[in-house]
Amino acid sequence: MFGVKMLESAENLEKMKNFGISEGISELILTTRNDPNDSKPNDSQYASNAAPFGIIWKNNRMFLHLFKGSKTCKNLMRENLFAANVTDDAVLYATTTFYDLEDDEFGYAAYAGEESGISKDASIPFLKTADRVVLFKCVERTEAEDSVIIDIEPADFIVVNPDNAGFIFNRGFHSVVEACIHLTRYELTKDQKYVDLIRHHWGITQRCGRKRDKEGFVVVRKKLNEILSQE
Amino acid sequence: MFGVKMLESAENLEKMKNFGISEGISELILTTRNDPNDSKPNDSQYASNAAPFGIIWKNNRMFLHLFKGSKTCKNLMRENLFAANVTDDAVLYATTTFYDLEDDEFGYAAYAGEESGISKDASIPFLKTADRVVLFKCVERTEAEDSVIIDIEPADFIVVNPDNAGFIFNRGFHSVVEACIHLTRYELTKDQKYVDLIRHHWGITQRCGRKRDKEGFVVVRKKLNEILSQE
Repeated sequence: MFGVKMLESAENLEKMKNFGISEGISELILTTRNDPNDSKPNDSQYASNAAPFGIIWKNNRMFLHLFKGSKTCKNLMRENLFAANVTDDAVLYATTTFYDLEDDEFGYAAYAGEESGISKDASIPFLKTADRVVLFKCVERTEAEDSVIIDIEPADFIVVNPDNAGFIFNRGFHSVVEACIHLTRYELTKDQKYVDLIRHHWGITQRCGRKRDKEGFVVVRKKLNEILSQE
Repeated sequence: MFGVKMLESAENLEKMKNFGISEGISELILTTRNDPNDSKPNDSQYASNAAPFGIIWKNNRMFLHLFKGSKTCKNLMRENLFAANVTDDAVLYATTTFYDLEDDEFGYAAYAGEESGISKDASIPFLKTADRVVLFKCVERTEAEDSVIIDIEPADFIVVNPDNAGFIFNRGFHSVVEACIHLTRYELTKDQKYVDLIRHHWGITQRCGRKRDKEGFVVVRKKLNEILSQE
């Protein structure tokens, strides 16, 4: 749909935004198919896996950076398709980070090429309670010792809950707001812990933020420097 | 529109969600009219003020808790109407936290009663670059020594940017996700700083979160206890 090189054009940014994905790192719940032939006792008893990961979109490239050992990584070394699920349900985030979901929490979508949309054939698991879902194709894998970089490409878009739009969930944006709050408290209390928290959130914005989030943190740092220079 | 007691009914929650407001505390940028008769040298030279504040919706009551001394508080002790602006622009958040905005960053809406909608007469400032805006009425003020609680009621809803839906910006939701990330890192590294950050975010979720955010944090604490009991 967009070609392998996913340009950060205004048009693409706008389209992806409605499905919860922006430049920088977007936190979504990825759902993948477990190996149906895998019945070793230590492996999941479930057909599908769900876990939160960041979808990275930087320098016109869209990719995952997965540490080996995660179920998601294991599955995506074998499968070429997965779903990215947009939800604001904190219980789903926490549960999928640490535990397995039951199979009946998943719906299944098939992807049969550029023109076909979604058919009724079950194939790619997604979260039934998500608001929006993007199906992705894995287009290239680059292995390092402990991790794999997988270049990805959006393949299809599913509106699961028409009442809710997708929304951007970017840790960098949130960290700017946290830093603003901590800095106003530092102004009042001069408690050093707030400066430490601002530094913590600065790191997150640098790693995960969008262009506008990084620019927002420049304003916070400017104000922090003004305050520190008056002490 | 909803009556003074703003019920946390499914219908109200759904309607407000599309304008960025949920139960718990929603972080929005409030815009208020400065006193046009106020020309003391230390006061703002601008006609309007913008600053981020939390809109609190707890136990079927919607209110602001403003510390005296803030420009927003000063204005809302005099004015009965204000706007809550939904935006994901981090620069606007940071700038309005610490600095004044130029007058040309504001649009103006008038509210002339339940039936009228928004007329062309300029009155209540809102941010021209916001996605969605809710006009609120102040219905009751309860003063304490350092702060004021103002009961509020939504009066009108403005879609400023039809391409973007409103989205919930709740610090509690975000803190659950941060805690999940920190706990996976604690599992790997056993670095105590991650437990401290989880405690920090737990406090935010307790103060600001929605019901589902607090339930999400219960999952995080359960997992943390499992990990700690194995050490």
